[in-house]
Amino acid sequence: MRATVRAALAAGASLGAHPSYPDLAGFGRRPMAMAPAELEAAILYQLGALAGIARAEGGTLTHLKPHGALNNQACEDAALAEVVVRAAVVFDRNLILVAPACSALAAAGQRGGLRVALEIFADRRYTPRGTLVSRREPGAVIHDPAESIRHVRAMLDAGGIVALDGTVCKSEIHSICVHGDTPKAVATASALRAALASDGHDLRPLPDIV
Amino acid sequence: MRATVRAALAAGASLGAHPSYPDLAGFGRRPMAMAPAELEAAILYQLGALAGIARAEGGTLTHLKPHGALNNQACEDAALAEVVVRAAVVFDRNLILVAPACSALAAAGQRGGLRVALEIFADRRYTPRGTLVSRREPGAVIHDPAESIRHVRAMLDAGGIVALDGTVCKSEIHSICVHGDTPKAVATASALRAALASDGHDLRPLPDIV
Amino acid sequence: MRATVRAALAAGASLGAHPSYPDLAGFGRRPMAMAPAELEAAILYQLGALAGIARAEGGTLTHLKPHGALNNQACEDAALAEVVVRAAVVFDRNLILVAPACSALAAAGQRGGLRVALEIFADRRYTPRGTLVSRREPGAVIHDPAESIRHVRAMLDAGGIVALDGTVCKSEIHSICVHGDTPKAVATASALRAALASDGHDLRPLPDIV
Amino acid sequence: MRATVRAALAAGASLGAHPSYPDLAGFGRRPMAMAPAELEAAILYQLGALAGIARAEGGTLTHLKPHGALNNQACEDAALAEVVVRAAVVFDRNLILVAPACSALAAAGQRGGLRVALEIFADRRYTPRGTLVSRREPGAVIHDPAESIRHVRAMLDAGGIVALDGTVCKSEIHSICVHGDTPKAVATASALRAALASDGHDLRPLPDIV
Repeated sequence: MRATVRAALAAGASLGAHPSYPDLAGFGRRPMAMAPAELEAAILYQLGALAGIARAEGGTLTHLKPHGALNNQACEDAALAEVVVRAAVVFDRNLILVAPACSALAAAGQRGGLRVALEIFADRRYTPRGTLVSRREPGAVIHDPAESIRHVRAMLDAGGIVALDGTVCKSEIHSICVHGDTPKAVATASALRAALASDGHDLRPLPDIV
Repeated sequence: MRATVRAALAAGASLGAHPSYPDLAGFGRRPMAMAPAELEAAILYQLGALAGIARAEGGTLTHLKPHGALNNQACEDAALAEVVVRAAVVFDRNLILVAPACSALAAAGQRGGLRVALEIFADRRYTPRGTLVSRREPGAVIHDPAESIRHVRAMLDAGGIVALDGTVCKSEIHSICVHGDTPKAVATASALRAALASDGHDLRPLPDIV
Repeated sequence: MRATVRAALAAGASLGAHPSYPDLAGFGRRPMAMAPAELEAAILYQLGALAGIARAEGGTLTHLKPHGALNNQACEDAALAEVVVRAAVVFDRNLILVAPACSALAAAGQRGGLRVALEIFADRRYTPRGTLVSRREPGAVIHDPAESIRHVRAMLDAGGIVALDGTVCKSEIHSICVHGDTPKAVATASALRAALASDGHDLRPLPDIV
Repeated sequence: MRATVRAALAAGASLGAHPSYPDLAGFGRRPMAMAPAELEAAILYQLGALAGIARAEGGTLTHLKPHGALNNQACEDAALAEVVVRAAVVFDRNLILVAPACSALAAAGQRGGLRVALEIFADRRYTPRGTLVSRREPGAVIHDPAESIRHVRAMLDAGGIVALDGTVCKSEIHSICVHGDTPKAVATASALRAALASDGHDLRPLPDIV
């Protein structure tokens, strides 16, 4: 982890924590029922641990984005979202919360006084409710970089999330997520960056945006 | 952990981290052979995690003291001691290192520029080399509070560690350890505090001492 | 664990596994959402590990009883109960399933062809639905050994679970649980055993009963 | 793990356990100092867990081979090797122990009454003492499949381990290891199998050999 932090700082990237349920064997992808105080402490533990590594490398955490099942659930469950936000606020109220546009998590972050970077997914389709189509459904994941570019441009043009059926949820957009665990992740990210640059957008670290 | 941090801060105690080898099932008591960079990162992780909890409660870490097998080994192995010291220095060079008087760990901390709180054990006997008599030896552990008081007073009078055979290793003494996992720990600590108060000593948080 | 297995075998006790969600830090008390195949494998892993220790000591597993959140959920969720039963069946179809009387878990075990030991709780009150009153409710836990004896005798007399409001769920009763993590556990178990002996009941290992 | 077991059994492979120190984060590669009883129980736990999965799939364990740091240390430390052997014997004295030719582990297995499959490494060089050249030394690892074939043929011709300087440690040879975590592992294994078949050797499951 430390070498990754060092490389990220050297590249001028800003550092964020990606806290999850404490389920290493399940890589944080399995929902766990935790008491709010217990979950808040688990998030603080993870924020602190990464901040410790960052500090040793002369950097700081600028943002957080929940991972896996915690993120999925906090996007729909306002009470859970508030636990995440509370952990961030008591740790460092200047942290930026990266949260999906139109989500309960984004709303909780704004209510809680955090700066919120609103995120769209380049490689995932949306339901009319503004949530992600489940990976179990056909077409949920976009594998073709060209299709990802069309998807993102449609959302930037519409000024919000565009669902499979065309429904739009209006939202500012600050961050575009490309999942790192797919074979074409790097190709998609590169192509998208080039396409958006040709449209006149530029890429900046989160703290310069929100 | 968080409730403990809150209670400690409310009681006016100073907070320290007790990092160990990453061996939860063995409670950090089993030596592990780790590469220096790997161990340093593991210590940073633990310092950071506790600092995160502390920060959420409005407190800070003032000191660290390695736990279990890591402490035992760092007291005799200068290279290992330097890894511990380096982790502390890159995390926060104002951290106080609590280290046994006359140990390689204490020496490494001083060389590395840390403030070092030199510690003696009220409930353990010493070898002529200034190390602890192994728990496997008879008489290694002192169970009787009155005997602990005699042991500590002898060391304060001698200005250093006093071994079973009377050998003295001269050292300043800043901190007295009573192990918390023995049945009489609280009785010993209370009796010792009263005895030392009657001798004219007072009890102060570490940052006021070193 | 091995010393406990040895002592249990020496005392003539029968050995059972107490598998839970793979959440060591939470002691298996937090519900986790696992895919059925993943949960089945996690249970097999735990059954096998204990069976390995038992085998080294010349013993065998005779029964299993899910632990914590897994048990609570399997008592009400038939699909989850079937995963538990399937793991037991493929591991050893002669295993006895210990399951609360009137639970979905007991029913699943019977459907799946396992011998089922039906269990009542000496130290917990029941709802009219035959489930345990939540520990968060006042009066959920019975602390007084004499009250536990009255509670058990009422259920033996009624031939089933007796809820707080007097509702009875008829059931055979093979096993009486006294939770081990309360201060009066040993006193309750001893008093209960004496009381039931004076009523003419005797205590036998599970394989002699079901 | 269960799907792997199922596939192995379907392919007619024999199943073996690969127990290590209980250090998941370090993948069992870091030496840990464990009390003999503690280590024996940790090995039993792992043997049992895999045997449980195997049993659910209608298979059995036929052999064990310690993993990582435990294997490396048991090859040179007779006392540690005896702990491994004792765990295997009390679990199932028909288990085959896979151990490097000329190692303390192989000797302990033979003394303990286990069948021992003597193993050579196709992709690693040997010291004159019959141990592996450390991965930190240049040339320790053989990356070229053709070179691995030459290395193995030299050992089969010599009837034992052939060290870098030509020293031979005479030994029967029952098993040839190709490490699975190198890019050319599959190519090396395939080429080696073809080469040895053309030399007149055939490939058989361990229980047919020792």
